Amino acid sequence: MAYHRLPEAPLRAFCETVMGKYGFNEKQSRDITDVILTADLQGLESHGVQRLIRYHRGVKSGTIRPDVVPEVIYETPLSVVLDAHSAMGQIAAVDAMERAIAKARETGFGVAVVRNSNHFGVGGYYAMMAEREGMLGMCFTNTEAISVPTFGKKAMLGTNPIAFAMPADPIPMLYDVATTVVPRGKLEVYAKQGKPMPLGWAVDENGQDTDDAKRVIDNIKNKAGGGILPLGGSSPGSGSHKGYGLELIVEVLSSILAGGHTSNHVASNGLGDTSQSFFALNVDMLFGNGDAMRENLSVLLQELRDSKKAAGRDRIYTPGEMEVYSREDKLKNGVPVNDSTLAELRTIAAELDMDFDALVPVIG
Amino acid sequence: MAYHRLPEAPLRAFCETVMGKYGFNEKQSRDITDVILTADLQGLESHGVQRLIRYHRGVKSGTIRPDVVPEVIYETPLSVVLDAHSAMGQIAAVDAMERAIAKARETGFGVAVVRNSNHFGVGGYYAMMAEREGMLGMCFTNTEAISVPTFGKKAMLGTNPIAFAMPADPIPMLYDVATTVVPRGKLEVYAKQGKPMPLGWAVDENGQDTDDAKRVIDNIKNKAGGGILPLGGSSPGSGSHKGYGLELIVEVLSSILAGGHTSNHVASNGLGDTSQSFFALNVDMLFGNGDAMRENLSVLLQELRDSKKAAGRDRIYTPGEMEVYSREDKLKNGVPVNDSTLAELRTIAAELDMDFDALVPVIG
Repeated sequence: MAYHRLPEAPLRAFCETVMGKYGFNEKQSRDITDVILTADLQGLESHGVQRLIRYHRGVKSGTIRPDVVPEVIYETPLSVVLDAHSAMGQIAAVDAMERAIAKARETGFGVAVVRNSNHFGVGGYYAMMAEREGMLGMCFTNTEAISVPTFGKKAMLGTNPIAFAMPADPIPMLYDVATTVVPRGKLEVYAKQGKPMPLGWAVDENGQDTDDAKRVIDNIKNKAGGGILPLGGSSPGSGSHKGYGLELIVEVLSSILAGGHTSNHVASNGLGDTSQSFFALNVDMLFGNGDAMRENLSVLLQELRDSKKAAGRDRIYTPGEMEVYSREDKLKNGVPVNDSTLAELRTIAAELDMDFDALVPVIG
Repeated sequence: MAYHRLPEAPLRAFCETVMGKYGFNEKQSRDITDVILTADLQGLESHGVQRLIRYHRGVKSGTIRPDVVPEVIYETPLSVVLDAHSAMGQIAAVDAMERAIAKARETGFGVAVVRNSNHFGVGGYYAMMAEREGMLGMCFTNTEAISVPTFGKKAMLGTNPIAFAMPADPIPMLYDVATTVVPRGKLEVYAKQGKPMPLGWAVDENGQDTDDAKRVIDNIKNKAGGGILPLGGSSPGSGSHKGYGLELIVEVLSSILAGGHTSNHVASNGLGDTSQSFFALNVDMLFGNGDAMRENLSVLLQELRDSKKAAGRDRIYTPGEMEVYSREDKLKNGVPVNDSTLAELRTIAAELDMDFDALVPVIG
């Protein structure tokens, strides 16, 4: 599939205008767009503007309602429980992390949990909101069940990602990964290409290791059993129980704390069923040496980058480093979108009486 | 190596008496013993009474000083920074988690970070201290660097375990794992037996995958390069970067928050160089529905245990479940110790003018 480069600033302006036309207010439109563009800039195409067509259809069909705002169910000086009432995931998530940060600014610690929410895009975005305030930020979400516990054959837990950010110079630490060994998208690539995937990624309907990606994807669609494995694969010898347990930790830190649906009870479209949590630790207030922590982590990250490389390797990356390079490239050379996404963006524009190619010229 | 079963109650009394003879006060002796016995009861022999001989030698040589107590360096209503001054790891850790719990009881959240501490035994012990109070408990420690970052060939980070506990019935959730794919002890078993270990566990001095456990162990001892891989193995395809990043998260949550030595600067005996953190979340106060959370997690854990099994498997375990069965077995049938540990316990007793066999009869 061919890729085209779109300039970031007009693409951003286009997305914000589209969100405004859907009925989101100015801040909401800016926030939703920033989450989406952050994914594209960091190289996570699956969470970028290629999702815009889904939002477009959701608004048209009424499953996305721009007038819905999260409701505060319970609150303390350190914490807040929000019911998103199926608001746009990004709206609920930005609201939640802003509340967590405000509490951490006052008390040292803030946590917001959200239930009945939706896919919130790239989790690292919210962790980085805290990092930009000099805080340690974390967020967790459950998803539709797609992952099989060790020794099981039925998907019971989600991809349940962990996002973690901590200030450092010149590159902050940013960790944002699914607790499954691979995301569903990786299997879809192998299924489309019809080539065998590595063993240790997924199990079939009998719970057996398989290299047949298409079979696993079909099974997931048909709820026929099997699914993706946790980080660590299928055997405790390679640490399967460690990844399975991590998935469960994220489940506790999302649906259990928020009083929402656990992954195995999230509807297959996931609509309005996901739970999330957002943590902000004001490390300077809590431990009294924010500058030293920042310096010490910066030194460690540089020591890692400088440490001896394996034969045939010329770089060691620190978590969040590749995202920074990706952002620099895309801000300079444009955001890559594929043929099909470009066509979708043009469709969205046309339906909203906008001339996409006049607004966002293809530059490469 | 032959194993013998020792009855738990007299073994516990013996350990407490030994600690008292070393100069620890009554509470300290009880706490240190409880951490040690918890490891044996949960089936983690490496962290159990087999370590007693090290403590014995440490006290004799003066590297373990029972008169040293951790010092409070900085404190807020939510947090405390402790300098352990190389106190016994268990003493500093119990002190730290007790402080975190007390803060969480008042405010909803408590965190204690500790620097200049020592090996604290089984991390799950401290997470479970919070769980017994109805709280979510977490603890993190760094260790001597033994793990190689993705694309590297030099050990830069520790086994950096994560411990996490959350109330549930009838079996609480307890997760306590190293973020390396396997602990060093697993390699030592393969090295002793001279058999090839699975690929994906460790790399040699060139950063290449190897099945030669003895070579890796020798390299670690001689600081000749290479080491154990993070959870996820050596390749990003199997999630190596996810495990490497988790190791780094634990590093932030230990040495960076505590202002201590990072793993790559922890002395090879680790003495007085390790850092730890202890988190207690009073989930009932923070989110207003402690009973519902406990119930919801209990339901999810039961659904996991009841979910469909892979072909050839008859059980799915939840994190912490096997530890409960292990404890039941050992309380009933005695704590297994091997020949060499039994001989060491007898030596310790003799040097302290105690008759081990009269105090702790072998029962199986």
